[in-house]
Amino acid sequence: MVAFPQPMQRLVACLSKLPSLGEKSASRLAYFMLNGNRDLAQALAAAIQDAVQQVKFCERCYFLSDQSLCGICRSGDRDPALICVVEKPMDVIAIERVGEFRGLYHVLQGLWAPLRGVGPEQIKLKELLSRLEDGTVREVILATNVTVEGDATAMYIANMLAERGIKATRLAQGMPKGGELEFADDLTLSRAFSGRNVLECVTK
Amino acid sequence: MVAFPQPMQRLVACLSKLPSLGEKSASRLAYFMLNGNRDLAQALAAAIQDAVQQVKFCERCYFLSDQSLCGICRSGDRDPALICVVEKPMDVIAIERVGEFRGLYHVLQGLWAPLRGVGPEQIKLKELLSRLEDGTVREVILATNVTVEGDATAMYIANMLAERGIKATRLAQGMPKGGELEFADDLTLSRAFSGRNVLECVTK
Repeated sequence: MVAFPQPMQRLVACLSKLPSLGEKSASRLAYFMLNGNRDLAQALAAAIQDAVQQVKFCERCYFLSDQSLCGICRSGDRDPALICVVEKPMDVIAIERVGEFRGLYHVLQGLWAPLRGVGPEQIKLKELLSRLEDGTVREVILATNVTVEGDATAMYIANMLAERGIKATRLAQGMPKGGELEFADDLTLSRAFSGRNVLECVTK
Repeated sequence: MVAFPQPMQRLVACLSKLPSLGEKSASRLAYFMLNGNRDLAQALAAAIQDAVQQVKFCERCYFLSDQSLCGICRSGDRDPALICVVEKPMDVIAIERVGEFRGLYHVLQGLWAPLRGVGPEQIKLKELLSRLEDGTVREVILATNVTVEGDATAMYIANMLAERGIKATRLAQGMPKGGELEFADDLTLSRAFSGRNVLECVTK
């Protein structure tokens, strides 16, 4: 079978190693780059090289940063007494999109996952504890995913915080916006019941 | 809103200009490259630059090639009397995958599309005609898509071939494999009827 020329095959092979790109979509992307979009392709190659060279992790919170401290840690108007613990940088972006949290973050860069052989020493836990030593932090919000690993990691950290007398909180769990009871899974419904709130009546 | 560091934002912006990549999937790809896959990212950047520099179009058939003639035109065991006309290089790949066609190709790099302002002079038509001058070619198979533009381009080329006394054929049209009558569109059904074949009975 006659196929694409060698340099294009290598490009397709590289592209198809990216997540959610199969060989067919990788071929389509490679062809797009070579067919009238060579300037964009070269800009992309340069952007990848710049990002790989310049983007590191924040030395304090392990969010992505091109300086030793990230934009959030450098910012003067965030509350240093409040730390929100998340699994990965994309979670920071999601919370920042809402724009309501005004504290700092701590990105674990993973979750405690004994079944996958990931121990607590392989995530940025030691680094979290050392941030708590100077007594500034009053509350740690455990915002890991609501999955077995996310829950276990949150519980593990909550125990360590209890020993140090620091308040640990977990994001509320229950029905999502637009959620229909009929289609809610058992765990969601169960947590929505156990976490139910008193509904305040508005009377004139 | 605090976002990714600048070099990563530029990477996301470049990625999201690629077809079928929105900003969310572009962010995810950029994060994948920077999070433990920096070697792959650098290999990708190099592959893009190599491909952009080395991959040109075949001087005869306009398929992709890293030499002046592509692998198909260079190959000694293809029938030069048969030319299959397609819209774009990906179509050549699709036909080569089947592995039955043993002639040469001609990639138009577009279709005649008066409604989008694309005239016959903007596709590789002149180049096709010059390939027919030496009298080698007996048949031209018009394998453009079965769309308004593909049909119009095929008809346009067929007229030019008729003037030159060269046989023009079009790929058969009808029901696709696995097609169900109930769900076939009108045009497909109509062409399946008008192109119906005598079913040879196999009798002992």
